[in-house]
Amino acid sequence: MAEHTVIMENTLRKLLAEKKYSTLREILITMNPADIAAIFNELEEDRLPLLYRLLPKELAADVFVEMDQEAQELLIRGFSDSELKAVIDELFVDDAVDIIEEMPATVVRRILSQADPEMRKSINEILRYPESSAGSIMTTEYISLRPQMTVAEAITRIRRTGIDKETIYTCYVTKDRTLIGVVTVKDLLLCSDDDKQIADIMIDKVISVNTHDDQEEVAQMFSKYNFMALPVVDGENRLVGIVTFDDAMDVMEEEATEDIEKMAAIIPSEKPYMSMSPFEIWKKRIPWLMLLMVSATFTGIIISHFEDALAKLVILTAFIPMLMDTAGNSGSQASVTIIRGLSLNELEFGDILQIIWKEVRVAVLCGLSLGVACFGKILLVDYLILGSFAEVTMSSPFLIIGVICITLSITVLFAKIVGCSLPLFAKKLGFDPAVMASPFITTIVDALSLLVYFGVANLFLPL
Amino acid sequence: MAEHTVIMENTLRKLLAEKKYSTLREILITMNPADIAAIFNELEEDRLPLLYRLLPKELAADVFVEMDQEAQELLIRGFSDSELKAVIDELFVDDAVDIIEEMPATVVRRILSQADPEMRKSINEILRYPESSAGSIMTTEYISLRPQMTVAEAITRIRRTGIDKETIYTCYVTKDRTLIGVVTVKDLLLCSDDDKQIADIMIDKVISVNTHDDQEEVAQMFSKYNFMALPVVDGENRLVGIVTFDDAMDVMEEEATEDIEKMAAIIPSEKPYMSMSPFEIWKKRIPWLMLLMVSATFTGIIISHFEDALAKLVILTAFIPMLMDTAGNSGSQASVTIIRGLSLNELEFGDILQIIWKEVRVAVLCGLSLGVACFGKILLVDYLILGSFAEVTMSSPFLIIGVICITLSITVLFAKIVGCSLPLFAKKLGFDPAVMASPFITTIVDALSLLVYFGVANLFLPL
Repeated sequence: MAEHTVIMENTLRKLLAEKKYSTLREILITMNPADIAAIFNELEEDRLPLLYRLLPKELAADVFVEMDQEAQELLIRGFSDSELKAVIDELFVDDAVDIIEEMPATVVRRILSQADPEMRKSINEILRYPESSAGSIMTTEYISLRPQMTVAEAITRIRRTGIDKETIYTCYVTKDRTLIGVVTVKDLLLCSDDDKQIADIMIDKVISVNTHDDQEEVAQMFSKYNFMALPVVDGENRLVGIVTFDDAMDVMEEEATEDIEKMAAIIPSEKPYMSMSPFEIWKKRIPWLMLLMVSATFTGIIISHFEDALAKLVILTAFIPMLMDTAGNSGSQASVTIIRGLSLNELEFGDILQIIWKEVRVAVLCGLSLGVACFGKILLVDYLILGSFAEVTMSSPFLIIGVICITLSITVLFAKIVGCSLPLFAKKLGFDPAVMASPFITTIVDALSLLVYFGVANLFLPL
Repeated sequence: MAEHTVIMENTLRKLLAEKKYSTLREILITMNPADIAAIFNELEEDRLPLLYRLLPKELAADVFVEMDQEAQELLIRGFSDSELKAVIDELFVDDAVDIIEEMPATVVRRILSQADPEMRKSINEILRYPESSAGSIMTTEYISLRPQMTVAEAITRIRRTGIDKETIYTCYVTKDRTLIGVVTVKDLLLCSDDDKQIADIMIDKVISVNTHDDQEEVAQMFSKYNFMALPVVDGENRLVGIVTFDDAMDVMEEEATEDIEKMAAIIPSEKPYMSMSPFEIWKKRIPWLMLLMVSATFTGIIISHFEDALAKLVILTAFIPMLMDTAGNSGSQASVTIIRGLSLNELEFGDILQIIWKEVRVAVLCGLSLGVACFGKILLVDYLILGSFAEVTMSSPFLIIGVICITLSITVLFAKIVGCSLPLFAKKLGFDPAVMASPFITTIVDALSLLVYFGVANLFLPL
């Protein structure tokens, strides 16, 4: 929580202890719902309902939406039926659905029983759509207009029905429930002729999404087209709901977090870190750790295979971590760049040859500069300063340093090629490219770099 | 580019070759600017100006904004002064600034000379603000109202001046240029009394940002408060501009990409991957690779120091990569989780004790389960199936396996603690937490796990 929220929280606590309820109410109504919610989330169980009841009805609902799931559940359990109904009546349908999705079944049943029939119908409709689909994040509260309405009639309709709608600024023109056009309030207000028909000023090249489209695609469309809202249609192009930009922003943030977690070998979770138990966190982290640990068997086998060579020239072992890490880092750089490009629809599988050719050139530049720098560094630090090569008698130290640096250059090349192509193939095969990031690439590149190392060493050194 | 865009591109190319200009125009005006821009970006230099000139004036400007920098520059160089003026007149100020920021000086001079004086003034004003500040992403085209206006007067003003404004839906109430309130078009339209004063219906607890606030904070406020626009004020609370949600979305995407790049040891770049040369990519990737390569000297020193032990019991070497990788992955999981939490303002330095305590419990769970699994895996795969311990005579194989698994458990604990605390300290010290991710953590954890490995081995094995 930010500093100024903490200060505010302390003030509110003091006033609450002194039972200065009217002052409390005065302060609360000057605040933004999101800020009030941040403070309410931190309150003790017995104080929260007291403070919450000081809020005026509409503000109360806005605050409710912004609160943590635990605080919401706590409040609902303490609500009388009429209090619960008052909150639900003020909610937008999509917010009600978000709340319901996180509540235990008994609470869900109470919420649904207090919602009015129309809202209950809408909630159930949205709940039917698969998780992360456009249908599951849409709201059914939008303004629809008829094509034969005049501009004046449309404005009257907006003024009459707008109060309960999530957005009034984009209105949808339908004919027999089919979406045929879009008109914005800006178009309506700026139209100089009040008697013009909606059909004449609406945009009929409507960009819409299907109820079953993935929410990530929906969010991408918002960032591409800068829309305030996008209509959601069913298979027959009938308008069933809209998604608004604020929901798209949440999805964007959520999807970026998911990608980042997957890239770090974590199974994504919808719960915030602070409200997860250690056991829940463990469940999200251990599967990949186990898999990657077991797959390190390959590197073990390779090293065991070259045990004799290592026993003869122990100095070679000292550079294994450096070689593996540098190759791993080089591969991660490439894979992460490609994964992000795929997520943002900037890259696709068809670009693979161009990408590989680009990465090969980058790898040659990186490989050469790292190789040269590594030669200088080993010569200066390990050979001259640390004297690490003092006991080496069976071969020239310079030859050994050469082997290390040649290996480094070659593995960087391999790592970049593996790093850039694996995410592309994953995408092509319908897997999530994000899991092809650092940890996965590292495991493959580890084995590759050892093979190259021992191969080059066998070629140049008397092992 | 998406499949359907490719199909459309081929159609357009054919029509262009056949010089069917009116058909081309008919098709283009049905399309969305962003889609047209995607196709135009792929066109050859000689075809682009031809096709671009087919667009009606307003659509042309919208398409122009969405195109790549290279395509924009190409077009501008081919424009006559009057063509350039026509495009600039249609641009919003913030879009004009975005374009200018990417163009070479000669092109910038031409653009500024064609812009009308008021626009030139606004552009120069925005260009003055530091990169990534709220001032640099704002637009100066907003609707301002006076507190004593009536609702009807406000609506008239919006209808008269709205056409050139980036958004008409949020209007700002000012008095002597000072921001004193906000009123939405929804409030105005839904107000039943046309003679009510703006001062009576406006919201006076306005949330605003300062011109010098970081764009990341601005984007965070959008996702927290679900605003459509945020006012930008100077040090004296005078309204100087607004930031709209679409700009905030771009910032969110940009900042997430930057974080992801930093986490993968890449210096962030504003240019898209496909338009960067291999040399430019190399410049973004090589500094961290060099630094991390050099810092691997420590792992080298540690291994050299225990050379004799490794020579006596070569089997120990075979498990070094597995131990280092598992520890590295464990550390990355923790660091990436914390870095993302810090980026989203869900966590802060004050939570450090809570976070470390949580990570310690997660680490104990992970360490124990990995240790047990590792024991089983080595026993089954390496000992029984592969016979890797066949040549070990100086100590019991079970003791060696025990040493490996104990090391694994301990290093996982260390890795999680280092992984979760480094980003927090970075934040506290004013560094970017994102650079404390996988590659950085890996380097530290590599050294730690080797020290633990040899320490435990020395304790239990006759080395």
